[in-house]
Amino acid sequence: MKNHRQRNGEIWAFENGQNEELEAHDHYENGEDGYDGVVLGLDGGTTSTVCVCMPFLPFSETLSTSPPILARAVAGCSNHNSTGESSARDTLEDVMAEALSKAGSSRSAVRAVCLGISGVNHPTDQERVLSWLRKIFPGHVKLYVHNDALAALASGTMGKLHGCVLIAGTGCISYGIAQDGREARASGAGPVLGDWGSGYGIAAQALTAIIRAHDGRGPQTMLTDKILKALDLSSPDELIGWTYADPSWARIAALVPEVVACAEASDEVANKILLHAVQELALSVKAVVHRLGLCGEDRKGSFPVVMVGGVLEANKNWDIGKEVLKCIQDQFPGAFPVRPQVEPAVGAALLALNNMKESRENCHS
Amino acid sequence: MKNHRQRNGEIWAFENGQNEELEAHDHYENGEDGYDGVVLGLDGGTTSTVCVCMPFLPFSETLSTSPPILARAVAGCSNHNSTGESSARDTLEDVMAEALSKAGSSRSAVRAVCLGISGVNHPTDQERVLSWLRKIFPGHVKLYVHNDALAALASGTMGKLHGCVLIAGTGCISYGIAQDGREARASGAGPVLGDWGSGYGIAAQALTAIIRAHDGRGPQTMLTDKILKALDLSSPDELIGWTYADPSWARIAALVPEVVACAEASDEVANKILLHAVQELALSVKAVVHRLGLCGEDRKGSFPVVMVGGVLEANKNWDIGKEVLKCIQDQFPGAFPVRPQVEPAVGAALLALNNMKESRENCHS
Repeated sequence: MKNHRQRNGEIWAFENGQNEELEAHDHYENGEDGYDGVVLGLDGGTTSTVCVCMPFLPFSETLSTSPPILARAVAGCSNHNSTGESSARDTLEDVMAEALSKAGSSRSAVRAVCLGISGVNHPTDQERVLSWLRKIFPGHVKLYVHNDALAALASGTMGKLHGCVLIAGTGCISYGIAQDGREARASGAGPVLGDWGSGYGIAAQALTAIIRAHDGRGPQTMLTDKILKALDLSSPDELIGWTYADPSWARIAALVPEVVACAEASDEVANKILLHAVQELALSVKAVVHRLGLCGEDRKGSFPVVMVGGVLEANKNWDIGKEVLKCIQDQFPGAFPVRPQVEPAVGAALLALNNMKESRENCHS
Repeated sequence: MKNHRQRNGEIWAFENGQNEELEAHDHYENGEDGYDGVVLGLDGGTTSTVCVCMPFLPFSETLSTSPPILARAVAGCSNHNSTGESSARDTLEDVMAEALSKAGSSRSAVRAVCLGISGVNHPTDQERVLSWLRKIFPGHVKLYVHNDALAALASGTMGKLHGCVLIAGTGCISYGIAQDGREARASGAGPVLGDWGSGYGIAAQALTAIIRAHDGRGPQTMLTDKILKALDLSSPDELIGWTYADPSWARIAALVPEVVACAEASDEVANKILLHAVQELALSVKAVVHRLGLCGEDRKGSFPVVMVGGVLEANKNWDIGKEVLKCIQDQFPGAFPVRPQVEPAVGAALLALNNMKESRENCHS
């Protein structure tokens, strides 16, 4: 296997030592305790990357109880659009090595790796990440690379691929998959390309409303005092410098609670921004449901809508997630909400197990 | 004088040699040929910075004919928000040194410096740039630092400060000044803060429309084929990577002609984007006019609207500038358009001359 950087030797050095040490009780390697190797599930985002190591159990067993986690590791950003290719690749390799090391396992025990990663928007993105993984793992290891939305969907459906997921945190995306495997997505294109329902989109509209109120283009709003106070600024003019001092999307998205607070205090401008975000988020889901026909021919069919991310979490009076759901159900009454009980990295691992089960069934049939 | 960097010595070295060389015919220094020193006018933008060196003539003389330019120098970005403080400062110093050197003049001949610079949005920005200039020029030199919109206004009014300017290039801003000196601005806050009438704003909305058509959230549009072809991309998915590959606003704003072409070919989506931009640009001007009362009490008073920038230049059938003007005149029939005959850097120099004339008059009165 060809190493693509010098320090790979160091990262994977634990494998040699551990293989000897674990020889007597090498249960994740050789199937004692009913385990036949391990699978890795990864959730790679702009803020952080999580990798879980799970035993390779029959798919049905992982669903009967809460899925068993052997180890969990966390690293930084692995979105290549944000951090660059080489840094994204290093982050992924580091976090997988750490998870395997913590689990007392090694690459030779890995049966499958499933990666849900933000910034994978095109087959060439997928191919690039697959080629990184192929250099790390032997040829028999099953490798799956998807947009992070797929891992989030699987975290709500416990690895079953059917339904729609809506993620609204700093960014937003809607992604769905039909019973026959057809996929569709909407939004998830980033702030330049109009993800107005995202945390960033909501907060950027609030900052814009402050500027408009200040320069006479828009109505006065509570947002001015609320947000200037939160940022410790004394004038709306200072917002321009503040905005460009640091291009991080998350820093702007962090202002969403201030917008919600103003809307809850009946500020009309803040209220309009949230209503717009609700429309945008619901539209993303509806576009996916419509394209995949998730609702059946009569539009009344039942399907899950997995809801993930800070923007959709319950607030006191102004509950964005609840309003989005109402708006979806107006058109598709069979849509039912799912709030995931496991994290997306576990969803990714369950996805790998499910994929392998299906390919085994297809081989036997 | 304290030098703020090592290489200042080099930049200004020409002054010593030239002073000796010019001793016999040092007309810009000592008032021969009717000149009593020089003034520098600068237009500092995100793309480039222009400095002109003009003789210090009585203000009325500069207006009787086309203003005499002794030298012109061009450098890169001097918007500190884009390029950082130290780089912006170096660019300004370099371009002034080059203009003085080309004019066969020197710092000792400078009577005034007027700088119109983008990114100056707050008194602290202004103070920062003034402190840079104070380190370069002796104490008696008059220094004026303004937002670049003021220089653009002066380029249309030949240095008189009255009326409103609308700049719509990569960014957009509206700025006005009343007879009594009161100032106001609108927009000019950058893409995050919703400058939807700017070239960047128009093109970003077009890219968003392509994504929406592709993922089922919006109607189909000619923009898809037109823009993908212009960028040599094969699918709308690739736009996401293209957008994040290079954060330059100008690169996105360069797509405006494609949007105009689609609108001219009756594409409804492109048409709506341009109509929205027209409303936004007109609103920026109206907000300034309203706040300053430029239109007089009966709203029918006459005032100039100086129109600058690629977005406002005439197109074949869809003329954004013309539509913006119509929209302004609907509310303020006394608004008359001015297309500047000189560049903003000359406007800045004229502004310096005008300011000095006014302060002289005030002293004498």
